[in-house]
Amino acid sequence: MNGADTLVGTLLASGVDTCFANPGTSEMHFVAALDANPDMRCVLCLFEGGVTGAADGYARMSGGVAATLLHLAPGFGNGHANLHNASKAGVGIVNVVGDHAQRHLRYEAPLKGDIEGVAGSVSSWVRRAAGPESVARDAAEAVAAARSGGGRIATLILPADAAWGAAEGAAKAPAPPPLLRPDPAQVAAAADALRRPGAALVVSGPGLHGAPAEDAGRIAAATGCRLIAPFFAPRLRGGAGAPAVERMQYVVEENSAFFDGVAHMVLVGADRPVNFFAYPGKPSTPEPPGATHDPLCPPGWDVAWTLAALVDAVGPAEPRRNASARPEAPTGPITPQTVGAAVARALPDETVIVNEAVTAGLTLAPALRGAPPHDLLSNTGGAIGMCLPLAVGAAVAAPGRRVLALTGDGSAMYTLQSLWTMARERLDVTVVVFANRGYRILRLEMANLGVTDYGRNAQRMFDVEDPSLDWQALACGHGVPSERVETAEALEAAIARASATPGPTLIEAVMAS
Amino acid sequence: MNGADTLVGTLLASGVDTCFANPGTSEMHFVAALDANPDMRCVLCLFEGGVTGAADGYARMSGGVAATLLHLAPGFGNGHANLHNASKAGVGIVNVVGDHAQRHLRYEAPLKGDIEGVAGSVSSWVRRAAGPESVARDAAEAVAAARSGGGRIATLILPADAAWGAAEGAAKAPAPPPLLRPDPAQVAAAADALRRPGAALVVSGPGLHGAPAEDAGRIAAATGCRLIAPFFAPRLRGGAGAPAVERMQYVVEENSAFFDGVAHMVLVGADRPVNFFAYPGKPSTPEPPGATHDPLCPPGWDVAWTLAALVDAVGPAEPRRNASARPEAPTGPITPQTVGAAVARALPDETVIVNEAVTAGLTLAPALRGAPPHDLLSNTGGAIGMCLPLAVGAAVAAPGRRVLALTGDGSAMYTLQSLWTMARERLDVTVVVFANRGYRILRLEMANLGVTDYGRNAQRMFDVEDPSLDWQALACGHGVPSERVETAEALEAAIARASATPGPTLIEAVMAS
Repeated sequence: MNGADTLVGTLLASGVDTCFANPGTSEMHFVAALDANPDMRCVLCLFEGGVTGAADGYARMSGGVAATLLHLAPGFGNGHANLHNASKAGVGIVNVVGDHAQRHLRYEAPLKGDIEGVAGSVSSWVRRAAGPESVARDAAEAVAAARSGGGRIATLILPADAAWGAAEGAAKAPAPPPLLRPDPAQVAAAADALRRPGAALVVSGPGLHGAPAEDAGRIAAATGCRLIAPFFAPRLRGGAGAPAVERMQYVVEENSAFFDGVAHMVLVGADRPVNFFAYPGKPSTPEPPGATHDPLCPPGWDVAWTLAALVDAVGPAEPRRNASARPEAPTGPITPQTVGAAVARALPDETVIVNEAVTAGLTLAPALRGAPPHDLLSNTGGAIGMCLPLAVGAAVAAPGRRVLALTGDGSAMYTLQSLWTMARERLDVTVVVFANRGYRILRLEMANLGVTDYGRNAQRMFDVEDPSLDWQALACGHGVPSERVETAEALEAAIARASATPGPTLIEAVMAS
Repeated sequence: MNGADTLVGTLLASGVDTCFANPGTSEMHFVAALDANPDMRCVLCLFEGGVTGAADGYARMSGGVAATLLHLAPGFGNGHANLHNASKAGVGIVNVVGDHAQRHLRYEAPLKGDIEGVAGSVSSWVRRAAGPESVARDAAEAVAAARSGGGRIATLILPADAAWGAAEGAAKAPAPPPLLRPDPAQVAAAADALRRPGAALVVSGPGLHGAPAEDAGRIAAATGCRLIAPFFAPRLRGGAGAPAVERMQYVVEENSAFFDGVAHMVLVGADRPVNFFAYPGKPSTPEPPGATHDPLCPPGWDVAWTLAALVDAVGPAEPRRNASARPEAPTGPITPQTVGAAVARALPDETVIVNEAVTAGLTLAPALRGAPPHDLLSNTGGAIGMCLPLAVGAAVAAPGRRVLALTGDGSAMYTLQSLWTMARERLDVTVVVFANRGYRILRLEMANLGVTDYGRNAQRMFDVEDPSLDWQALACGHGVPSERVETAEALEAAIARASATPGPTLIEAVMAS
C-alpha cells in the first residue's frame, strides 16, 4: 500500500466516490490506486476546466463533495476559472494536484511551478502532503475542509513521492466544524423587520431549493415581504409548484427598478446585492439610497437553520407558489423573446437546467416560472465556460433526470471539450448552443458604457464570424449527435426530441441577427 | 483621452504593436482605445490559453514583447498554463488584465477574485494601476519589466475606472536594466574548462538561434567540447547548415546514456540539466556522479555577450554544421519512426516548427537534423496545449514563413479553439494532429513507473476513445480545411500540399495502433 492508495481509500471512506480527472505523469500512482478501487467513479475530461466545472455541477446536484485530479500548477491554472465559479457557488470540492517528487524540486524541471500560489488564489484550504504517511490524514482533513461552511474549495498537493511511498491505512474525514448561526435575538429582530413595509428577504446558496426554499416561501407568505434571489444563484428550484421567488436583474437600470421600494433587506446565505459590473455614472448597488441591510446569515453560515428559525418566529403560512402556465407556441425567428417559450414548452419534468445563454438567456426567467418543475444552475462567478462542464457533473450526479445546457456560442467555446465526456459517459444532456455569432453581451456592455459607434478593431473583438463556427461539425468531432434549427417552433420540437433520446444531443439554434 | 487610450498609446510608443485578446466587459474601454489606434494589431482568440500561447509564439519569433488582454482573475487563470510555458521560455509578455472599478470591489460581485494571487503565481512583475493618471507610467514600466532579463512575464491590472477615467498623454518604456554578465575571469576559466576532456557547453534560451548559436558552434569547434541543448528549447535553429547541436533525451535511461562521459558542464542560458519527471529508484539528474557544473551565465543573463566572449577566449573556428540529408521516402503505417522522415522530406525552407507531438515527436530530432533549415519551438514548460496557440503567434510574427504545428490529439484538445484564429487571420499554418486516440505518453509513463498491468479505471484515463475524436469535423467546425491520412507516404504528400496552400490546413494523421 502506498500514499496514493491511502488517498483513494480515505476519499471513499469519507463518502467521496466520484473523481473528475485529467491526470498527468505525476499522478500515475493515484491512477493506479483508482484502478484498485473500482468503487471510485472516474470521469475523464479532456481539459481541466471541464474537470473543475463538472465537479461544481456534481456538487451542486448531489450536495456532496466531488474530487478532482489535476496535474501540477498549469493543470490547476486551467481549472481555475470554474473553481472560481464553484467557490462563489459555495460547493465542496477536493482538488488533488500532483507535483514532482520532493527531491526533484531542487532542480528547475520544466513543470516546476508555484502550485501553492495558483491554488491559493481560489482555494479556502491548501496543503502539501509532507510524505506518504501523512497523505491519509491530509486527505481526511481536505474532505472536512471541503465540507466546512456548507462547501468550500480544498486543494491537496500530492508530491509524486508521497504518492508512491509506502503508507498504511486509510483515514476518514472528521465532521466539519458546525455551521455558524445567528443569535436567536437577531432572528427575532429580523422577523419583526420583515413584517414592515418595504422589507425583502434575500436568499441564496442552499436556501433556494429543498426544504429551506419552502421555508423561505413560508416566511414571505407570513410576513408579506418580498422574496428575492440573485440573478445568478447556484441552484434555484423553479417552475410550477415551486415557492415564488423574484430574481434580480442583470441590466443596471432594470435592477434599480426591481429594487424600487425596498427599504430593508434581510440577507440569508446571500451577500449584499451588487450589480454585475460597475459603469461610469451608474451605481454599484441596486437598492434605493437609505435602504438598510441585515446580514443575518452570511454565506457559509447555517442557512437551513436560520430559515427554519425565521419560520418559527413569523408563524406558519403556506408559500405562494408558481402557477403552472404553458406559453403560447412560439413561431418564427429564434430571438431572446421566443427562446423562453420554446424551452418552457419542451421542458421535461425535473429537468436540471444549466444556463449560460448570456444574452439569449436574459429573458428566460418569466417563461420558466410556470414551466414544469426543474432546478436551474447559473453562473455564480461570472467566469464563462461553466455550462457544458456543469452539465457533465449534474448529469453524473442526477441519473434519470434530463440536463438541459443552454449556452451562447461564445461561452461554449471555452470548454467545448466537455462534449466528448458527455458522449463517452452517455450522459442524458441536451445542449442548446445559441449561435449569435459573437459575444453579443459585449455589444450590450459597450452600449452600457455609452459607446455605440466603433470600428474594425472593436468589431473584430465582438464578432465570432469570418469564419462562423459550425456547431454540428464540432459536435460530430466530439462524438455527439446534433441538429440545427432556425425557428422557434423547430427549437421547441428539437428540445422535445432530444429529451426523449438517451445520451447527449447538441442543438445549434441559429439566432435571428 | 482616458486611461485606456494612454495605455494603448504607451504600448505603441514602446514598440508593442500586437495584442492577443479575449476581452470582457471590464475591458471595453481598452477595446474602444484599440479602435482609435489601428496601428495596434488585435488578434481575437476564443479562449485565454490561446491568447497567452499566441503571445509566447509571437515573442519567440519576433524577439519582441507581445501584449495580451485578459478578463479578471478567471481570464488570467485560463491563460496561466501557457504563461507558465512562456515564463520558462524566457519571453517578454505584457498581460493587461481588466478588473472591476475600485469602488465596486467593496462588494461581493460575482467576478471579484484574487487577480494578484493568480497573476503572481506566474508573473515576474505585477502591478495594479492606481488610477487613470498612472496608467501610462504603469504600462511603460510593464513593458520594461517584460524586456528585463531578456524576457519576462509582466502583468498590469487595469481597474475599469482607471481605464475610463480622464488621463493625459502616453509614456514610453524606459530601457530595461542591462543584462547581467559573468566576470571576464569566469569566462576565461570556463573557456579553459571547455578544452578539457569530458567538457560540455550546455546552451538554451537565446543561445540556440541567430548569431549566438553560431558562436556556440564556434566554441564547440574550437574546444572540442560537446554542444548540448535541452530537449525542450524555446527556439532551436536546426536543419542543414545550422550549427550541430546535440539535444538531451526525454526518457531517463536514454538521457543518462546521452550524458555518459560528461565530466564538466558550462551552462549558458541554461539551468542544470534535470530529467522531466522523477521516478522511484531513478536519478533526477542525467549526468554521471561527480560531474561538475559551472553556471557561467544563468537564464536571464546576457547569453549573446557571454558566448561572444567565450569565442574571443577560445579563438576562431568554424562551427560544425548539420549536413543536408534527405531520408528515404517512408512508406506504410504512420509510426513515431516514419513520422520524422515524412516531415523532414516535406518541410519547406525556413519553416517554423512547433512541436508538441509528444510520443509521436520523440523521434523527430534525428530526421530534422539534415532537413531544410528551420526553427523549432518546443514545450519549454511542459504544460500541454501550447502547440496550436504558439503556431498562431509564430505565424503572426513571421509572415511569409510556413508554420508546421505537430501535435498529439490529446494535447491539441486543450486549446483547439486556436484553429478558429488561424482561419480568421488566414495564417499559413499546417497543423498535423497525430491521432493515437489517447494519452500515449501516460502509458509510457505508467511503464516507467513499473506498472504494466492495469484495469478499467486506469485504461479509461489513458484512452481518448469511445468515442474517437474526429479531427476533420473539429477542423471544419472551426473553419479550417482538412484531410485525413493513414500512411507515411500520404502524410508526406499532405504536408507538401498544405505547405503550398495559403492559409491553414489540418491533417489528421491516424497512427498505427
